[in-house]
Amino acid sequence: MQIVILAGGVGGSRFVSGARSAYPEADISVIVNTADDITLHGLRICPDLDTMMYTLGGGIDSERGWGRTEETWRVKDELAAYGVEPSWFGLGDLDLATHLVRTQMLDAGYPLSAVTAALCTRWLREQPQLRLLPMSDDRVETHIVIDDGSGRRAIHFQEYWVRLHAVPDALDMVRVGIDQATAAPGVLRALADADLILVGPSNPVVSIGPILAVPGIRAALQSAQAPVVGFSGILGGAPVLGMAHRLLPVIGVEVDAAAVGLHYGARPAGGLLDAWLVDSGDAAAARTATAAGLPTRAVDLVMHDPATTARFIRSGVDFGLSVRAQRMQLGQVRDAS
Amino acid sequence: MQIVILAGGVGGSRFVSGARSAYPEADISVIVNTADDITLHGLRICPDLDTMMYTLGGGIDSERGWGRTEETWRVKDELAAYGVEPSWFGLGDLDLATHLVRTQMLDAGYPLSAVTAALCTRWLREQPQLRLLPMSDDRVETHIVIDDGSGRRAIHFQEYWVRLHAVPDALDMVRVGIDQATAAPGVLRALADADLILVGPSNPVVSIGPILAVPGIRAALQSAQAPVVGFSGILGGAPVLGMAHRLLPVIGVEVDAAAVGLHYGARPAGGLLDAWLVDSGDAAAARTATAAGLPTRAVDLVMHDPATTARFIRSGVDFGLSVRAQRMQLGQVRDAS
Repeated sequence: MQIVILAGGVGGSRFVSGARSAYPEADISVIVNTADDITLHGLRICPDLDTMMYTLGGGIDSERGWGRTEETWRVKDELAAYGVEPSWFGLGDLDLATHLVRTQMLDAGYPLSAVTAALCTRWLREQPQLRLLPMSDDRVETHIVIDDGSGRRAIHFQEYWVRLHAVPDALDMVRVGIDQATAAPGVLRALADADLILVGPSNPVVSIGPILAVPGIRAALQSAQAPVVGFSGILGGAPVLGMAHRLLPVIGVEVDAAAVGLHYGARPAGGLLDAWLVDSGDAAAARTATAAGLPTRAVDLVMHDPATTARFIRSGVDFGLSVRAQRMQLGQVRDAS
Repeated sequence: MQIVILAGGVGGSRFVSGARSAYPEADISVIVNTADDITLHGLRICPDLDTMMYTLGGGIDSERGWGRTEETWRVKDELAAYGVEPSWFGLGDLDLATHLVRTQMLDAGYPLSAVTAALCTRWLREQPQLRLLPMSDDRVETHIVIDDGSGRRAIHFQEYWVRLHAVPDALDMVRVGIDQATAAPGVLRALADADLILVGPSNPVVSIGPILAVPGIRAALQSAQAPVVGFSGILGGAPVLGMAHRLLPVIGVEVDAAAVGLHYGARPAGGLLDAWLVDSGDAAAARTATAAGLPTRAVDLVMHDPATTARFIRSGVDFGLSVRAQRMQLGQVRDAS
């Protein structure tokens, strides 16, 4: 079985770990958001790809959710001693080696997808059935428009999130480079060949949003043979992780599990999803979304550990398959077989 | 008083520390060899400048003689875990921050001399009368030709010294880029304005040699008003530090304190030096060099500590001044006053 997962960083990587447990025999390709990527101190940093790689490869600091276990911060402190800015980014010593290798390969002309594959030869050596695909080899960066008192200015998403802790209101968002970006090699083919496509519970605005905004990816999802099953990261009207509640207003979407599902939309209505999973605490949202045409089920979505996550993914997938089966009986979709 | 010192790394920085002690009121400019510089992992590394900066700024690991005190090697080990070569270079975590700052400034278009001044705002903040000048802002690299069994090949000096420990015979030497190099801003002016010029006991082939080979620097030394006093790094037929004995044969110079002095040459004979200092154990070399026209004195040249070093520098300078005074009486030099 070929599974494709769309995902961001911290939550996304936990979701993929769960999917790995749920379907141990499947080939899993993860299309990872790269719009959080940033260049600092001359180093190209890909937070979501790295979080995914470290998590799946067993190198993550699982308490913090990002960065390496047994990390130290000597280079960062030393850069600060030189008075070099920015000093707010969590640049660990072990992590830095990854950025050095990446930056040097990029400077040598390798595309990000090839660099990611090279880095994964270390981290995913023993998991050949798991591969990470950056959404694009092109440089795309999410910038957030804030008012800092002296007027509106656009800052990199990392600055908004890491330095400002998403405190200022996000007035607008710009995805620099997105219109000129193309999907990385393997991305569209993976979607076309998939038996199952999962949209992880990552941030709909700055994680899943950029992936879907890469020209070609939305259309590939819409035309995919595989059922597309989405999972809400909003539980009880708030994100489990991160700052989606601070950013959803920018795209005019309510901080609500039904609203996010309907933002992705139901496939028969031109949207992306065959089925939507919300938390068991959001039964009302499930009814709202279903009534609005998006088949939605409420299950326990808290990712306590890979086993729990695997359980709700299997249950979500079963629900998605039943939705597809029903619709096939009604002649609404072609039989992929 | 304006003092200019020509120097390399480990020995050179100890010599400069001694000069600092010897003449606490003087303005000291150090013209530092940059032909050892190397780019590794995308980082521009200037070993001699860094050793000088860390030593004079109190950050050196004084037992090892290079690199930072309380250094760690986490990034280096992590690069090795990625299988990234080369792994033989001693790239410490604290040291790496220096290279990151330097590389980013160079990439932004600042010349090495400006980068060095910027880095020194941290290290030499409290020593405004001490400044480090790279010999050149242009990229110059010493390559050593060896025979590795399958034929002759040229390798970077750092590979010869750090990886191969100077074991293979050096068959030849190439200073890549030297002909096109120009002296860094401030270098020629410092030599012209100096009251005293000291040639440190650094390697005559790969430390002092490249400085003298930068077009314009040799002529500036020859025409300088100041007395030029040189100090031998060869004691009793062997270098105190480093691998000068492995490289002197390449330039056809005997591993001998008199031979090195005569290689620099006496000023009246078109050479560089007014006076040459050899170790008290090399009294025969002192006689040989003096007889050959280079006024030479034997004193204890072992750099036990800055105080000892200061003592022999003062004694060498006094000797140099007496040689100049004598020669002025003989009408061989103009009075600088």
